[in-house]
Amino acid sequence: MNSFGRIFRVSLFGESHGRAIGVVVDGVRPGLPLSTDDFADDIRRRGPGLPGTTPRTENDLPEMVSGWLNGYTTGAPLAIIFRNTNVRSDDYERIKDLPRPGHADFVAYKKFSGYNDYRGGGHFSGRITLALVAAGVIAKKMIDPVEVHAKLVTVGGSTDIENTINKAMSANDSVGGLVECRVSGIPIGWGEPFFDSVESVISHLAFAIPGVKGIEFGSGFAAASMFGSAHNDAFIDASGATSSNNAGGILGGISNGNELQFRVAVKPTSSIAREQQTINMRTGMPEKLVVTGRHDTCIALRVPVVLEAVAAIALADLAAIQNKSKG
Amino acid sequence: MNSFGRIFRVSLFGESHGRAIGVVVDGVRPGLPLSTDDFADDIRRRGPGLPGTTPRTENDLPEMVSGWLNGYTTGAPLAIIFRNTNVRSDDYERIKDLPRPGHADFVAYKKFSGYNDYRGGGHFSGRITLALVAAGVIAKKMIDPVEVHAKLVTVGGSTDIENTINKAMSANDSVGGLVECRVSGIPIGWGEPFFDSVESVISHLAFAIPGVKGIEFGSGFAAASMFGSAHNDAFIDASGATSSNNAGGILGGISNGNELQFRVAVKPTSSIAREQQTINMRTGMPEKLVVTGRHDTCIALRVPVVLEAVAAIALADLAAIQNKSKG
Amino acid sequence: MNSFGRIFRVSLFGESHGRAIGVVVDGVRPGLPLSTDDFADDIRRRGPGLPGTTPRTENDLPEMVSGWLNGYTTGAPLAIIFRNTNVRSDDYERIKDLPRPGHADFVAYKKFSGYNDYRGGGHFSGRITLALVAAGVIAKKMIDPVEVHAKLVTVGGSTDIENTINKAMSANDSVGGLVECRVSGIPIGWGEPFFDSVESVISHLAFAIPGVKGIEFGSGFAAASMFGSAHNDAFIDASGATSSNNAGGILGGISNGNELQFRVAVKPTSSIAREQQTINMRTGMPEKLVVTGRHDTCIALRVPVVLEAVAAIALADLAAIQNKSKG
Amino acid sequence: MNSFGRIFRVSLFGESHGRAIGVVVDGVRPGLPLSTDDFADDIRRRGPGLPGTTPRTENDLPEMVSGWLNGYTTGAPLAIIFRNTNVRSDDYERIKDLPRPGHADFVAYKKFSGYNDYRGGGHFSGRITLALVAAGVIAKKMIDPVEVHAKLVTVGGSTDIENTINKAMSANDSVGGLVECRVSGIPIGWGEPFFDSVESVISHLAFAIPGVKGIEFGSGFAAASMFGSAHNDAFIDASGATSSNNAGGILGGISNGNELQFRVAVKPTSSIAREQQTINMRTGMPEKLVVTGRHDTCIALRVPVVLEAVAAIALADLAAIQNKSKG
Repeated sequence: MNSFGRIFRVSLFGESHGRAIGVVVDGVRPGLPLSTDDFADDIRRRGPGLPGTTPRTENDLPEMVSGWLNGYTTGAPLAIIFRNTNVRSDDYERIKDLPRPGHADFVAYKKFSGYNDYRGGGHFSGRITLALVAAGVIAKKMIDPVEVHAKLVTVGGSTDIENTINKAMSANDSVGGLVECRVSGIPIGWGEPFFDSVESVISHLAFAIPGVKGIEFGSGFAAASMFGSAHNDAFIDASGATSSNNAGGILGGISNGNELQFRVAVKPTSSIAREQQTINMRTGMPEKLVVTGRHDTCIALRVPVVLEAVAAIALADLAAIQNKSKG
Repeated sequence: MNSFGRIFRVSLFGESHGRAIGVVVDGVRPGLPLSTDDFADDIRRRGPGLPGTTPRTENDLPEMVSGWLNGYTTGAPLAIIFRNTNVRSDDYERIKDLPRPGHADFVAYKKFSGYNDYRGGGHFSGRITLALVAAGVIAKKMIDPVEVHAKLVTVGGSTDIENTINKAMSANDSVGGLVECRVSGIPIGWGEPFFDSVESVISHLAFAIPGVKGIEFGSGFAAASMFGSAHNDAFIDASGATSSNNAGGILGGISNGNELQFRVAVKPTSSIAREQQTINMRTGMPEKLVVTGRHDTCIALRVPVVLEAVAAIALADLAAIQNKSKG
Repeated sequence: MNSFGRIFRVSLFGESHGRAIGVVVDGVRPGLPLSTDDFADDIRRRGPGLPGTTPRTENDLPEMVSGWLNGYTTGAPLAIIFRNTNVRSDDYERIKDLPRPGHADFVAYKKFSGYNDYRGGGHFSGRITLALVAAGVIAKKMIDPVEVHAKLVTVGGSTDIENTINKAMSANDSVGGLVECRVSGIPIGWGEPFFDSVESVISHLAFAIPGVKGIEFGSGFAAASMFGSAHNDAFIDASGATSSNNAGGILGGISNGNELQFRVAVKPTSSIAREQQTINMRTGMPEKLVVTGRHDTCIALRVPVVLEAVAAIALADLAAIQNKSKG
Repeated sequence: MNSFGRIFRVSLFGESHGRAIGVVVDGVRPGLPLSTDDFADDIRRRGPGLPGTTPRTENDLPEMVSGWLNGYTTGAPLAIIFRNTNVRSDDYERIKDLPRPGHADFVAYKKFSGYNDYRGGGHFSGRITLALVAAGVIAKKMIDPVEVHAKLVTVGGSTDIENTINKAMSANDSVGGLVECRVSGIPIGWGEPFFDSVESVISHLAFAIPGVKGIEFGSGFAAASMFGSAHNDAFIDASGATSSNNAGGILGGISNGNELQFRVAVKPTSSIAREQQTINMRTGMPEKLVVTGRHDTCIALRVPVVLEAVAAIALADLAAIQNKSKG
């Protein structure tokens, strides 16, 4: 389904090559100062421009069509729309029946009985994350002064990111990456047992980002190899500060006041300019496919700001739930 | 919050040392054959008994108090209750003010203003997973003939599991482990973009299991180091079967008909019989703590059946959502 | 589905003649003083005893199996169970195939493909309202000092209630009634546009009470015959107090600080000791039916405390939603 | 909150005098034939034009910005937007601090701490029902061949509707009305005990329509005055058809295969061109107010198509829930 959250709630819509994409954000506090300029930084960070990102450029200006008046949020649902302007649907017409390996084309065709918008991945497109980023801008304001920062830490397993991307580009290939997010300033007590644990809600949203294949909090997968005496974080004072942070800032699914830390693995872009094996969905016969069009070499480059957005969205909702009984 | 699911919906309740724990399962199809015997295998698999698990034994007999008549589910909410009988609260009285490192004691005290049930972790206890397992038994029947199998693959980073556990036990220590789950027979099309992707829903529930620190699907974290030409799974026939399964059976958040594969990292048991540093929540002063009582050396040993349960619960709900318009 | 509420959330289960009925209440504030005695008054008010109510008596003692410790709520899900002890299933065995006119027997059989618990209405029984009343006791404490009072105002269209009931009893008949609820002390601002208006949430829950056929707020159905100049409530001071209360304390779906007023129409008990026309669901043939067993002459007599409960449940949730951003 | 539904789910946004209003409809079946022409009839029925409706005219053309391709729904979220073009905000500037009696102005100001969009009622405006009507068009297609028909049955208590409206207009007054809705062709078994009863879900949505003060199903409020022998509907054949329809097509909250019947009471338009008593929210002092601007004499005239919409939305969701396990 297209909506998520109990109180701070986002509803996505749109397709890569449709008229517009957008998001409705509900549960926004009235009186939050907000202007379209506030979206500029995060939209730019998500956008293309770096080597290794798609040459498709959109004039991605958010239009706030509701929930906003004279510089402030009103408390009513805030709808934000982005028009799709730079749409080259022809790139996709030829491959309508040829599902791209690693893409949602095949499952979309089957799930939606062939009625799915096949152009550019349709509703499955990474372009929809632009709407998530917009919602993230609101969410960050909601949880201020909590600060959310994500960054790309490795590409293709290497910290020499530029070099690895160049290698992939020159091989007409793509490459994956690892993105880390850290959140500081979270009060003790956000998150709810069992099903709204901080990890549950963040991972739920993180896996909505196309290309994410794994998530780990604190020590993460390393914990599976550790002994308890090394893993337990000792309390060092009454604030709950700990000497290490294997917990990643979460105990029992609840924020413990230390820095929240998590990482996601992003797979290499599925669209590559190399010949690949696929099947023709109309004829059922095998065919060769070379994906043309405009694509990122490394989508992980654009994930940090999206990961920040989903973290902020998750935390804005958990904060609202935790504050529920403060009548 | 204590409930999860849109159509197939589970609501948990209970504490480690309270009168009972239980689960209400809603959205169960009427006419499902069901007896208390059907729970026996999974309950036994979750229970103690193996070296490395707690000596606490409960006579864990499920009582179906509603939603069941004469051997069949009725379609009404199915409530299942387990009485807590083997309760030694005294073990915890002494450490009421001393939060155990790695446990939820500290955050529970803060979040619930000191009113939390502190005995044995209270509502945060791993014992509550018994209720998840019971719900999983129903869920597995709901998605039959889909088959869910999880197993422990490494402990402390090693496949010589018995040896590693013995080492940890003799050191009064605990150790983490890696659990893998595979699901076969899922039709194409389960899962919904964006927020009910298969990964989103499974990870949401998996992180409700105490001790889980990470989850990865298919190639998982390895994907972050891979090139697209190696990662993309080539389609080999019209059924959507692929030559490799880096996708882990999921494309665009939707099941693609191949085997679903994912792994979770389980941290070492937090309770260890070694002296640790903590703070006294009443006085605010540092204290030394040795956790006594009955504890697992390796909780990962007991996680596989719980992971199967949450996978089945997730899939039962996604199946219901996918089948929604088949009037 | 069996659960309702965004933050303050109740999940019902049970059948008239099953082992137990119960409710899980989530979103309860920790530290609420609570004892089983607190339930006594409302349970007694719902129970039989008055002329015109069923002679079935249950020793309706609530068992709080979770979420409660040493006289206070803990903040974890609060599960309350009532055992069914006085169960005479034989009364229903004979009429298993004969749906009682005005009852859910027919639709339950069809909807649940014959697997429904047919004894005493099963999950559709008015007995389940006992669980609602228990949740209402918690909800009333949550919204304190807001006060909720409901009373029966007419029976069979008359205020001479005792006489009307006697007339119905002596005719082996049953009779309907009108119940009014008033809530004082609600702050301005509870309720959310559009879908969580105060009327929306209260009516949603009120129609969960078996037998309710209509609900009206403030001027209600009379408003359909009124002119605006007579209907508008003039503001008389800056508190928002109005000279009349045709709004019933609600404007635009939001509490306006005046007394909340609403009424529900309760139909006559469907079970009557007179011969009625029905069909045999097994044979498809018409048959005559005389409903025996223990039944109320006027279920409206027992509705006030249930209506208070659902009003309190609705308001507890709306209060939590309104207080969401008071960090 | 602005969204409703479990599977067929609508999310509203917009204000009377903002840039646009709209709705996101999720859970739409792929392959539903749909064009903008399909909205024309219902939009026209909701619109002004009749004597007794507002002279404000909008060129209310729906723009489907997502979820639609080449004449068919795609299965992705369907967003429909209506631009606000005929906006005379000045009408409201003068009365910004003077809450109109019977309107949401006062509560909106208080609830949203003065940040609410005060122009024309903002998010509380009846104009938002245009988005509901658009969603209703989709919902009607989803439940086809079920047919939903609503009509105005009385105005000011009279069936001589034209005459009553003229009287109110010439007195610079407004008048209420009664609207009835009938739905034929519903299969047996829609609706869920307890909290998703047909009455619960329809009433929840009906009270989202501005001006609705009451709702009754079947015999409704008359049931409170009836005896059971007169109220029970006798079964006349194996289809579940009944000799009368006091149940209004619903037993135990579940559709019973007979015609669904319900009525809503609509209050007189609150905006009237007569002097009324209010308070100045800035100064706290009493003031006289004459509401100018463009207003309906009788909003009940425009309610039938909105009531059809919410009934169809409710039923589309209940149908989806009922069909959940038809794999």
